[in-house]
Amino acid sequence: MTVTPAWIAVDWGTSNLRAWAMGPDGRVLAEATSDEGMGKLSREGFEPALLRLVGPWLADRPPVVACGMVGSRQGWCEAPYRTVPCTPLDRGALVLAPATDARLKVWIAPGLKQTSPADVMRGEETQIAGALRLLPGYDGVLCLPGTHSKWVHISAGEVVSFQTYMTGEMFALLSEASVLRHGMQGAGWDEAAFDAAVSDALSRPERLGARLFSLRAEGLIAGLSPQAARARLSGLLIGTELAAARPYWLGQRVTLIGAETLSAAYARALAAQGVAAQRLNATDCTLAGLASLSPMTEGAR
Amino acid sequence: MTVTPAWIAVDWGTSNLRAWAMGPDGRVLAEATSDEGMGKLSREGFEPALLRLVGPWLADRPPVVACGMVGSRQGWCEAPYRTVPCTPLDRGALVLAPATDARLKVWIAPGLKQTSPADVMRGEETQIAGALRLLPGYDGVLCLPGTHSKWVHISAGEVVSFQTYMTGEMFALLSEASVLRHGMQGAGWDEAAFDAAVSDALSRPERLGARLFSLRAEGLIAGLSPQAARARLSGLLIGTELAAARPYWLGQRVTLIGAETLSAAYARALAAQGVAAQRLNATDCTLAGLASLSPMTEGAR
Repeated sequence: MTVTPAWIAVDWGTSNLRAWAMGPDGRVLAEATSDEGMGKLSREGFEPALLRLVGPWLADRPPVVACGMVGSRQGWCEAPYRTVPCTPLDRGALVLAPATDARLKVWIAPGLKQTSPADVMRGEETQIAGALRLLPGYDGVLCLPGTHSKWVHISAGEVVSFQTYMTGEMFALLSEASVLRHGMQGAGWDEAAFDAAVSDALSRPERLGARLFSLRAEGLIAGLSPQAARARLSGLLIGTELAAARPYWLGQRVTLIGAETLSAAYARALAAQGVAAQRLNATDCTLAGLASLSPMTEGAR
Repeated sequence: MTVTPAWIAVDWGTSNLRAWAMGPDGRVLAEATSDEGMGKLSREGFEPALLRLVGPWLADRPPVVACGMVGSRQGWCEAPYRTVPCTPLDRGALVLAPATDARLKVWIAPGLKQTSPADVMRGEETQIAGALRLLPGYDGVLCLPGTHSKWVHISAGEVVSFQTYMTGEMFALLSEASVLRHGMQGAGWDEAAFDAAVSDALSRPERLGARLFSLRAEGLIAGLSPQAARARLSGLLIGTELAAARPYWLGQRVTLIGAETLSAAYARALAAQGVAAQRLNATDCTLAGLASLSPMTEGAR
């Protein structure tokens, strides 16, 4: 079956490359994924990696709209950050990637930066733009949990300010590469341990450093189970994030955008603090955000 | 030159094996080091690893006294934890390792555990015992900065309580394995950045998660230098530890036991809080602690 999309949506992060063949009505005609993320590619490697993935869709020369680390300094072509406060995306700031294959016209969306406190995002701005399309007139806070969680204050269609937390990366490092990994092997989850750890971290966030090693010590001398240890580590890190992000969620309308399981954990932690967070699917947001850019690329062809 | 020690002191940690040939008067006759730490050895590998290092010193069959992870469950032979409050070392709790070479008699010192809050140490108890020999009648707090920093409350010659912080391991993971590594390559140090970060973390410790990513963001958009980024990461982590360990140092007599550079950083951070910490050399403490055990092993031969 030949796929002839009206345009191609691309989410190109550090670890993965994902592409969707989009119909003229906004439906997804086909989807493809590879592990050729920015982290594995030299500058010359981007075009061949994209062709390997979407080559079969290029008969009609559809425009490609991409977001994520592909636009970073180490990416295919730098799309300079836009500075908040500003709308999450701006068609006029798209950057055309240098491609040699005549069928390829690849537009890259820039990320956002905040001058003080210094902060940056690449990829999330597209999910934010998508969320604002899915929730017209939204006013409040968006939380995008992940490797580098973002809390984003939205007002009048603009990103007013944002703050990044390394919570996901810390969880990965501590559970897979630190001494704590010994007590966390295997699957399983302990919801009560998660809840207690969130509450504990929210009330005494400065004690994180001391609580981490106790996961190892309790495993050694008090029989702490691997699933309780994993859930408690997650709860401690998310609770610590919530403690620092309090101004972002206290008394605010909050919407979570992220992977199913992780968003559920954040929603649960917020619910315990009396915040009923709405949830949006991350891929839906990415596609809605990229779609908001596609008409312009048609015009710019 | 033949070395015929009265006894052999061994510090056998996760990453390294260090041995000293000790004279009858307590002088070090020779010293040897290898990278055959516990982490690289199976149970059967310990005896050969030790023989490779100290074989030339065994003509007179001197007893060997060892501390560290060699006595853990994954070590050569488990030396079960003693429970605080108790003296840091007890000759009666030494465990004899199973050796096949007739020249080898290896005594292993047990670590300490605390039931609640759960905590453990292996190796530091020997440095603590050494410090108490070097500072007779010491009453106050010992801080042993390192991969897993320990704060130890000493009274009447006993370890009353202690608390472990993963500060050193977090620094290694974040500066070498996380996204922050990109902005921290190379050597160099920025003392002012360290001081500011310590003070910042002490006054708002709950904001650690948010401050970490700003090191990356400032590197990208504000030209933060690698040496300032490294020093600030160190200051943030040490400051966060000090914030949680405040009950251990506020108004207390504090002595630091650890590597030169790291101890100096802790001393500087504590001085800014009005605490004049004394410093002891870590190897001196280890040897003094092991020496406190050696007469017993003579008797037990």
